[in-house]
Amino acid sequence: MCGIIGFTGRLQVADILIGGLERLEYRGYDSAGIAVRQNDATKIIKTTGKVAELRKKASETDDIEGTCGIGHTRWATHGGVTDINAHPHVAGKVTLIHNGIIENYKELSAALKDKGYTAVSETDTEVAAMLIDSLYDGDPFKALKEADQQLAGAYGFCIMFEDRPGEIYCMRNASPLVAVSTDDGAFIASDMVALLPYSKDYFVVPEEHIVVMTPDGIKLYTMDQEEVAPKMLHVDWDTTAAQKGGYDFFMQKEIFEQPEALKNTVMPRLHNGRADFSADNISDDIFKDINRVVVTACGTAMHAGLVGRHLIESMLRIPVTVELSSEFRYMNPILDDHTLVIVVTQSGETADSLAALRLANERGAKTISIVNVKGSSIARESDYVLYTHAGPEIAVASTKAFSVQCAGMYLIALKLAEINNMMTAEEMAAYCDAFQAAIDTVAPVLEMDEQIKGIAEKIKDTFSAFYLGRSLDYAIACEGSLKLKEISYVNSEAYSAGELKHGTISLVTEGVPIIAIATQENVLPKLMANVEEVKARGAHVIMVTDKDMSSYEGIYDDLIQVPNVDDRFGTFGVTVALQLLAYHVTVFRGYDVDQPRNLAKSVTVE
Amino acid sequence: MCGIIGFTGRLQVADILIGGLERLEYRGYDSAGIAVRQNDATKIIKTTGKVAELRKKASETDDIEGTCGIGHTRWATHGGVTDINAHPHVAGKVTLIHNGIIENYKELSAALKDKGYTAVSETDTEVAAMLIDSLYDGDPFKALKEADQQLAGAYGFCIMFEDRPGEIYCMRNASPLVAVSTDDGAFIASDMVALLPYSKDYFVVPEEHIVVMTPDGIKLYTMDQEEVAPKMLHVDWDTTAAQKGGYDFFMQKEIFEQPEALKNTVMPRLHNGRADFSADNISDDIFKDINRVVVTACGTAMHAGLVGRHLIESMLRIPVTVELSSEFRYMNPILDDHTLVIVVTQSGETADSLAALRLANERGAKTISIVNVKGSSIARESDYVLYTHAGPEIAVASTKAFSVQCAGMYLIALKLAEINNMMTAEEMAAYCDAFQAAIDTVAPVLEMDEQIKGIAEKIKDTFSAFYLGRSLDYAIACEGSLKLKEISYVNSEAYSAGELKHGTISLVTEGVPIIAIATQENVLPKLMANVEEVKARGAHVIMVTDKDMSSYEGIYDDLIQVPNVDDRFGTFGVTVALQLLAYHVTVFRGYDVDQPRNLAKSVTVE
Repeated sequence: MCGIIGFTGRLQVADILIGGLERLEYRGYDSAGIAVRQNDATKIIKTTGKVAELRKKASETDDIEGTCGIGHTRWATHGGVTDINAHPHVAGKVTLIHNGIIENYKELSAALKDKGYTAVSETDTEVAAMLIDSLYDGDPFKALKEADQQLAGAYGFCIMFEDRPGEIYCMRNASPLVAVSTDDGAFIASDMVALLPYSKDYFVVPEEHIVVMTPDGIKLYTMDQEEVAPKMLHVDWDTTAAQKGGYDFFMQKEIFEQPEALKNTVMPRLHNGRADFSADNISDDIFKDINRVVVTACGTAMHAGLVGRHLIESMLRIPVTVELSSEFRYMNPILDDHTLVIVVTQSGETADSLAALRLANERGAKTISIVNVKGSSIARESDYVLYTHAGPEIAVASTKAFSVQCAGMYLIALKLAEINNMMTAEEMAAYCDAFQAAIDTVAPVLEMDEQIKGIAEKIKDTFSAFYLGRSLDYAIACEGSLKLKEISYVNSEAYSAGELKHGTISLVTEGVPIIAIATQENVLPKLMANVEEVKARGAHVIMVTDKDMSSYEGIYDDLIQVPNVDDRFGTFGVTVALQLLAYHVTVFRGYDVDQPRNLAKSVTVE
Repeated sequence: MCGIIGFTGRLQVADILIGGLERLEYRGYDSAGIAVRQNDATKIIKTTGKVAELRKKASETDDIEGTCGIGHTRWATHGGVTDINAHPHVAGKVTLIHNGIIENYKELSAALKDKGYTAVSETDTEVAAMLIDSLYDGDPFKALKEADQQLAGAYGFCIMFEDRPGEIYCMRNASPLVAVSTDDGAFIASDMVALLPYSKDYFVVPEEHIVVMTPDGIKLYTMDQEEVAPKMLHVDWDTTAAQKGGYDFFMQKEIFEQPEALKNTVMPRLHNGRADFSADNISDDIFKDINRVVVTACGTAMHAGLVGRHLIESMLRIPVTVELSSEFRYMNPILDDHTLVIVVTQSGETADSLAALRLANERGAKTISIVNVKGSSIARESDYVLYTHAGPEIAVASTKAFSVQCAGMYLIALKLAEINNMMTAEEMAAYCDAFQAAIDTVAPVLEMDEQIKGIAEKIKDTFSAFYLGRSLDYAIACEGSLKLKEISYVNSEAYSAGELKHGTISLVTEGVPIIAIATQENVLPKLMANVEEVKARGAHVIMVTDKDMSSYEGIYDDLIQVPNVDDRFGTFGVTVALQLLAYHVTVFRGYDVDQPRNLAKSVTVE
């Protein structure tokens, strides 16, 4: 959730830290800070606001020379957004940054008070710093091992000890950390985006290990101080992919990258009229002997699960349950080895989804993940992983990652059908053709950008909005609504169209935008009856559809007509239109599209 | 959805119609109208607004004498709220009122245009009037039978023909109609509440039948004009129960009726530490050999399904799916004779839930309904019915009906456990004791009315609000949020607490009310971590809980502390507190608590 960077070596560290934080900023950004080790002291600069504020403050600071330091961008969990609550935090000999949540900080804090520690901030992080200091007698390994035993929660730490100049110690539990070593020195970060200017070769810090960084390199140890060799990985995209290109915002760029992202994800896996997972090393066995599918995910990824549910249930007659990961992990779920659990996540580090996956593994379910980030925790811990090939997604609001997650669902459904003889060869070939054709409609939808922008302008000043759909279109409505809500701050909500009458229609008054989604022929008359009901109450109705609407003229105000596709594949074109609508409404409202308030890209705390 | 009343006999009809409409008003109320048969003509008075407007307009009309007539309150579906769109509608010799939706009205309208008919309103109803007139050659049976074949959709009709003074013809499909015969004449209505001053004995008009009312009584015929004897029923509550008593609003009265409603529903069914359904004539067989439970319902009743899901899954390890009826009926659901389908509905007439039930019956699932209104369609058509004994619920926003629906779920869960040997006798007895104890906490929660009113005043001016909970508390949050939303018009939304971070937290800013529900010990620390996150963003946090909050002081603003109960039964007390909160916020905002705009009590159209 928060962003972490650390360096020790032969270069000036302040620029490395602040530059890294700028690249990490999408991961957490209500405050930022750095600590630079100088001769006998550690200089700390921290501030609320974006990293640009920190850069300004650093440029106004006299002496920030030094070649060892740590930096942090914060997404507030415990305690408000203040300078004091920003990281790094100091306690005695310990200077520390932290990504995660310490659950037992209140108990620890009480015990530390008895030992004479007094917190200056309201954070759980400062308690961790005090704890480690209280355990430190000159042996970092002993202190960290004991701290690890006492701390409950999730954490990635980078720590400098006052009496160990030039050294940085790191340890993680749940929260991600990656490390890089070059001739210039040793780097650590919570995400490789921060380190791309320095190297493409890295390793993921394993849980329950300690990393020691010195100017001469990085060493990885077990908790019992046995050195182990890290498992090296290689990044296959470059720094420029993580820039905005010619677009105004990352989100806009990522919306327009969807034809390519979809092709990269789907094309290598459709061969001769069937789904081919051989390059993914996914065994057919995982799709055999399944009597139930559970999809677990958070936020946007959960909506891809809803799409998958509709598809698998209606086409294959296998019951599918979609669970929020934050619920699933505590619900004592009903699972056995006939249950296929699909975990969907862009980052592969979503804390709740990782916990859900681990629970599914423990209970003996078959697990497969749909993940965008290679080598991420969820990718590594699931039985099999179907990587989506969307490239890095920087904007907090997920767009291309959602489309390829849906594509992953469509691929898995096809493979399930094949393995369980639920479709004939002809049906599978027709499915592949329709799938391909639907993906090919994304580019034409992108060409409707100006028209959609015009419609966005009409509703830009609204306080609330409702997205309606039935069946598959309800899943699409959920994602369309979340997209608008999270970046434009419109109070938007998705409703199954038939359910609106059971309460929510009381909020539909003159001019309230209703975005009605119609890709399902069989429920079209029913949907339009609901649309008539809101129209009768003065709503501003925007139809988003691939269907012929000529017999319904006069009961909607605006029409976004996307190319017609097979009803099973209505997801792709309409989703892109809804992303553009949310994007333009937000630009008209003057908000920061890529970094909506309060939100972080990858939710690595509960 | 709309309200219907008709009378022919020996009394002046205008007062009977308007009085009946006033009692029916909760069923649909954006306009109203009556048609009174006079010597050679039919006098029609209709107006937008409430029935009081109609009464005023009638009192200003010179001559409204007559002893045969029909009356209607409308809840707009097709066409806006205008005088012209109000019922009754006239076409040629036909004067007609209608409850329901004609789905093929556009096609019919085109065909009728060719025959020289021109509509004056925008309604589907006028098309039905034109159709029947076009088929009428002096034989009402022939016209109605042919109309029935041509009409698609849902309807309850009352019709007067110009050349048949003193006669009213009625026919229904899906939409409810009840009939009463007395020495004074013949009555028909969409709900017995309208007819309680005249009789407690009535019959439900069967589908595909024709009712003929004359001053001498009522006759029931098949579509082929064979007379059949109606099946008589008796109402066991009286008119006074349908009045407000000493309360300001029906909703308030119904909230305070909950201790009694719960006792009436639960006590007769808990005997010797087990659930006893013998008086309900529910066979044990329906609970045997079940591998899956599906709950289908709409609105508030669906939230009772979410409560049931949590209970049955966590306690009995039987997978439960909760489906909106409007989705279920079109989703080609996966059902077999090992599936227990539970349909939950207050009125027993909810159109989507009735269709869902019929589909479940067709597919061979076992069906049981939880219904408040005796003899209603859903009660009659399900394999078994567990009646809730809440008495009539008049306020549009359901309160006591929800509590007893939840109680029905707890009873069914216990019976499932017993029949399938999933609990020991001791466990069942403990469950009964805890259930009883939880119900006993409702009265003390009602005594917190003034405190809750004080908290309501603090948030009365908000535009939006969020309800948070995990696990069972998420189900309670859904219902609490809907209650606030539907009557106060606050843009309220319920969220699983762990999910808020995946988008919606961007709407949480200074002063936004967050209502956090905490009855589940196992997720309390997780919930409170989420509460800290919203608190850090300035939210106004209202904790509603039966748990000890002393270790969390300072991270909430207001506390509604209900009596502690067994975690499985947290539903009852907290729900009542949330109802009071929604009620008081709405009163402070100055809205009509009982009749929120756009909403109808019983949704008998799709």
